[in-house]
Amino acid sequence: MRLFFRQVRPYYGLLLDHTASRRGVLANANVEVVSVSATPPRDVGLLEAIATTRAIRRYTDDPVPVGDLEQILWHAGRAPSGSNRQPFRFLVLRDGANAEAAKAVLGRAFRSGWATKRAGDGYRPSRFADSMQHYVDHFEATPVVILVCLERYRDVSPYEGASVYPACQNLLLAARALGYGGALTMWHLGVEDELRAMLQVPATVALSACITLGVPAGRHGPVKRKPLDEVVFDGRWGDRPTWITT
Amino acid sequence: MRLFFRQVRPYYGLLLDHTASRRGVLANANVEVVSVSATPPRDVGLLEAIATTRAIRRYTDDPVPVGDLEQILWHAGRAPSGSNRQPFRFLVLRDGANAEAAKAVLGRAFRSGWATKRAGDGYRPSRFADSMQHYVDHFEATPVVILVCLERYRDVSPYEGASVYPACQNLLLAARALGYGGALTMWHLGVEDELRAMLQVPATVALSACITLGVPAGRHGPVKRKPLDEVVFDGRWGDRPTWITT
Repeated sequence: MRLFFRQVRPYYGLLLDHTASRRGVLANANVEVVSVSATPPRDVGLLEAIATTRAIRRYTDDPVPVGDLEQILWHAGRAPSGSNRQPFRFLVLRDGANAEAAKAVLGRAFRSGWATKRAGDGYRPSRFADSMQHYVDHFEATPVVILVCLERYRDVSPYEGASVYPACQNLLLAARALGYGGALTMWHLGVEDELRAMLQVPATVALSACITLGVPAGRHGPVKRKPLDEVVFDGRWGDRPTWITT
Repeated sequence: MRLFFRQVRPYYGLLLDHTASRRGVLANANVEVVSVSATPPRDVGLLEAIATTRAIRRYTDDPVPVGDLEQILWHAGRAPSGSNRQPFRFLVLRDGANAEAAKAVLGRAFRSGWATKRAGDGYRPSRFADSMQHYVDHFEATPVVILVCLERYRDVSPYEGASVYPACQNLLLAARALGYGGALTMWHLGVEDELRAMLQVPATVALSACITLGVPAGRHGPVKRKPLDEVVFDGRWGDRPTWITT
């Protein structure tokens, strides 16, 4: 027997309206403002955030201030890695000539990647397809693009991601905590050689992921996933757990 | 300019004492018990959790009830994956003949893996080395071991981890939220063939990670990481950001 304690989250409504408040609309008047600071609200619950962090592909024109970006990257780096070697590197593309040139190359790759996938997988017009089309069409306007890299210290391996993708997930969750949203993508691999040359990325470094970040034009919320008993086995491959109730 | 709103986390002390309260010691009397349920406290903050979720390698003898395990796995599965295919699978080893046999095989691999690493990397006696030794020596007593697998739908790739390791990080964070702790390890690869045979894992499935879980004998807390400006580049590989203050 265990005890359940009542949750107190009086500012929950505010958090959901964080995007709006960033744009100058203070949506919730039942709020006690105790200071003006670069530090935004931080009271989203852990499980709630894990359950409702969506891939966000539509962004407002709002920038991601470097103070927030620093917080997001700092939290990304708290992720575990093999022997705590921390081989992850975050190559940030914001503005400036280099970053804009790289975003243009990436934009091309994303449009081409989505066009191929859209045709190949036979996507019909849908909210998802529209969202993807908008994402790639406006790629260059993405406030922040982060190439998450891995400094390899061993041979290339299908398991090397264990030391870089946990940091990607931390990055996306930390962005969520600060009112942003993002998507983890792989279409940068279509222009990998060109990117490496432009950004002077050494051959020993993997370009493991391309994460886009910005203030969500929409909202976070529940995600669509398979029923849990389709992805969990108990004691042996293929043995369905008897204890799953959801 | 943005606003900062005061955090209200009256039960924070309780959360830290969750482990104690699980063992029947209600450590914090300033708590309003509103119901008795299988649902534990959930008010750890997202950023706080990301910043302070350690690899936990010492566990008490307390079990991980299946209700909690279900919650943890459900949250793990909310992670993103390529095209939302959700190729991650969670092969849970708890008790029973199969699970115990697999844990014994894993224990051997972990002890051998650590012995090799300890000698090769020249670890001297230290708190970390002691903790690792304890971890591998008591592997069979680990309350829950989860082999996180990837059903491959493409050729083996160094990027395939993008669809499985974010789920691993969600799993570890969700475990933290419910009062548990875990470690993401790779020593299972030392006995991969034997494990596959025992657990009937198809050849097309990668054994991407081995996560151990239990009630921490110690505590979560800050983690040791490199200074942020050693892992972040701005606009080009090697260009240090000017805007990092920590």
